[in-house]
Formats: sequence, C-alpha cells, structure tokens
Amino acid sequence: MSGTYPSILLEEAVNQFASLPSVGRKSALRLVLHLLRQKPEDVEAFAGSLTKLKREVRYCKICHNISDTDVCPICSSLNRDRQTVCVVENVQDVMQIEATGQFFGLYHVLGGIISPMDGIGPKDLEIESLIARIEPEEIKEVILALPTTMEGDTTNFYLFRHLTNDHPGLRVTQIARGVAVGGELEYTDEVTLGRSILNRIEFTP
Amino acid sequence: MSGTYPSILLEEAVNQFASLPSVGRKSALRLVLHLLRQKPEDVEAFAGSLTKLKREVRYCKICHNISDTDVCPICSSLNRDRQTVCVVENVQDVMQIEATGQFFGLYHVLGGIISPMDGIGPKDLEIESLIARIEPEEIKEVILALPTTMEGDTTNFYLFRHLTNDHPGLRVTQIARGVAVGGELEYTDEVTLGRSILNRIEFTP
Repeated sequence: MSGTYPSILLEEAVNQFASLPSVGRKSALRLVLHLLRQKPEDVEAFAGSLTKLKREVRYCKICHNISDTDVCPICSSLNRDRQTVCVVENVQDVMQIEATGQFFGLYHVLGGIISPMDGIGPKDLEIESLIARIEPEEIKEVILALPTTMEGDTTNFYLFRHLTNDHPGLRVTQIARGVAVGGELEYTDEVTLGRSILNRIEFTP
Repeated sequence: MSGTYPSILLEEAVNQFASLPSVGRKSALRLVLHLLRQKPEDVEAFAGSLTKLKREVRYCKICHNISDTDVCPICSSLNRDRQTVCVVENVQDVMQIEATGQFFGLYHVLGGIISPMDGIGPKDLEIESLIARIEPEEIKEVILALPTTMEGDTTNFYLFRHLTNDHPGLRVTQIARGVAVGGELEYTDEVTLGRSILNRIEFTP
C-alpha cells in the first residue's frame, strides 16, 4: 500500500510505529487503526505507560538491570549465590536465564557488547563497574553469557583479560556451546558441531 | 520467555504493546526496550502522536474516512467522478484502492461489515448515511468492494436490497472476483476458480 494517508495525524502516528524495529508501514497502520478503535482512556493509558516508563525507569546500581528500586530484587536477595555473577548483554537475557530456573547467582548487565562497527567501545558498557564489584562483593566466579558472534567473542576476550589481570584468583567461565537439546546433528552447522566435539564432557548415565 | 519482569513499569508498557493485534509478549518487550533506548523527547513524541491522533481525529462527514478536515480531500475534489461511489469496509481499503490508480470516483467507508457473531448490525455501520447521500449527490453507480466472506456477502446483499429499494434507477455493481493476476490456476481455490469461469468476460486482444 503506497502512501497517501487521508490524514496527517494518522500518518504521523503510523510513522512513529513504523520507526520501531521490524514493524512495516502496513503493520504500523493496522496497529494505529486498532488503537483508534479503543476508548480514549485506553489510548491515554497506552501512551502514558510509555512516557511513565521512560521518565521513571531506574537501573539497579549494582547489576544495571532495569529496576523499580535503587537495588534490584535479585541483587538484594538473601537467597542467591552471591559468589557467582553471570554477565549478559541486556535485560532480555536476564529474563531468559531466570526463566530456565538453572541459575541462582547474581547478574551484571553490560548494556551491549563491544562493536567497533557500531562505534560501541568498552567505555560505553558497564565493564568498569563489573571489574570494580568483584573484590568488595567477594565474587569467586564470573560466567560470560554473551552472544556467539564476533562481537560477543571480542567482548568475552576483553572481559577475560581485564578480569583476570585485576583479580588473578577469579574463575572465569563461559556458557556451553553445542548442539541444541532436541536438535538433530543433520541440521546443526559445522562450527557448532565441531565445537560440541572439542568441548565434549564425560557421559554420566 | 516466561514472565518475571524486573520492573512493574516495564511490565505495564509490555502489557500495553502485547494488547495490540498480533504482537506477542516477546515482541512487545523488544519494542518497549527499543523505545527505552531512544531519547526522552522521542518517546514523548511517540506517545504524543497517539494521544493527539485519538483526541483530534476527525471523520469526513460525507464518506466517513479519517480526515483532518470536516470534508476529506477526495470528497471535496473537483477532479473526481462524483457519480460513482465505492463502498468499503475501512480506511485501509480506501488507501489500497487509491494506490491502484484505477478508481476516480468517491468513497463511502462503512466502518465495518454486518457480523451478527460480533454483534455488529446495520445500525452500527454508516449504511443510512450511504442511502441518504445517493439522491442529493446524484450518484448513478455504487460499487460494492467488501471482503469475500460470509459477512461481506451478507452486507452486500443488505446494501443491494436497501439501495435499489430506495433508488430504483441506481446501478449497483461489485468488484470482480477471480484468479489473481500472476496467479496459477493450480493454486487457486475451487470456489474462486469456479466463479472466474461463471463470470468470464469477452476476450479483448
């Protein structure tokens, strides 16, 4: 559907939605017209929730996850393993790992990964604050859980070097890469399959 | 990703986005976190465009399309064929037909179609205003361009009966149904293919 909108107000709202990632102009129009059919107070609530979030959002001053309080519930919990910190790229990753129910330590949200192409260097990320929290918090292990991309590998390497340099006794691990659970070997890419052989572990029946 | 959000503000914004049609919770989170990375004034602009649209939106008092003015540019244009009105379900359909560049008449936006299942009857739609505009506007032809569904057929039938009843000389047509241009017969459903044979037209080389 090429573009003559019957109203500038409509077009502006569509432009806003179409600026979101993976929302095309046709979907944007459908979403805006859906909102237009809702009650005025519902549209105000929709818009209000966004401005309120942006105005009032806080980040945990320890792990930098989004939080409603200065220190997030995970960082202030007495039931977590406080000697282990899992380093992730963003807020979604914390939610993903929490959803597994397999990790009981703390987190550190970098807010991105090192990406020279996008102009993101170590100074743009929460790396200094990570290194600074190791000693006072008596952290024994840092788990690197960053994406398996060139940028992720670069960031892993940078973190490893700085963490072990400043804290020689620290254990630095990374999450296992391998064939997905339920995955067929036939459909696994060669690099992943190769790594799953190199990084094989003892079979425990 | 099952649900413990690190912040209630975040969760509320995600709930709002997830209430939109065909936006899941995971997409909603991605969209909200994208907005959160934007400048405060950009988030205000996003939210503002929605509330402004909802507060200030007007509908053309003749064709009921969304409009910034009391009478929309199409209805007030002197270059359109004012004897032909194309009846459509909604605003998107006007834009779709305008984009074809094949129609030069006027429109009438019903604002829906008759759907007893959804509790939408003739009184909920702009049907009376359609019938009322035929005579004063000296309209000679009404083109029915509604969806090919049971509801569309019901609405077509209802409109035909009332339009011809009140205005015996009026020509009522409907858009052609048939095999899509570029479409293979092999992949065309039987009903469409059958209708395309019944409604065959003279071959014009």
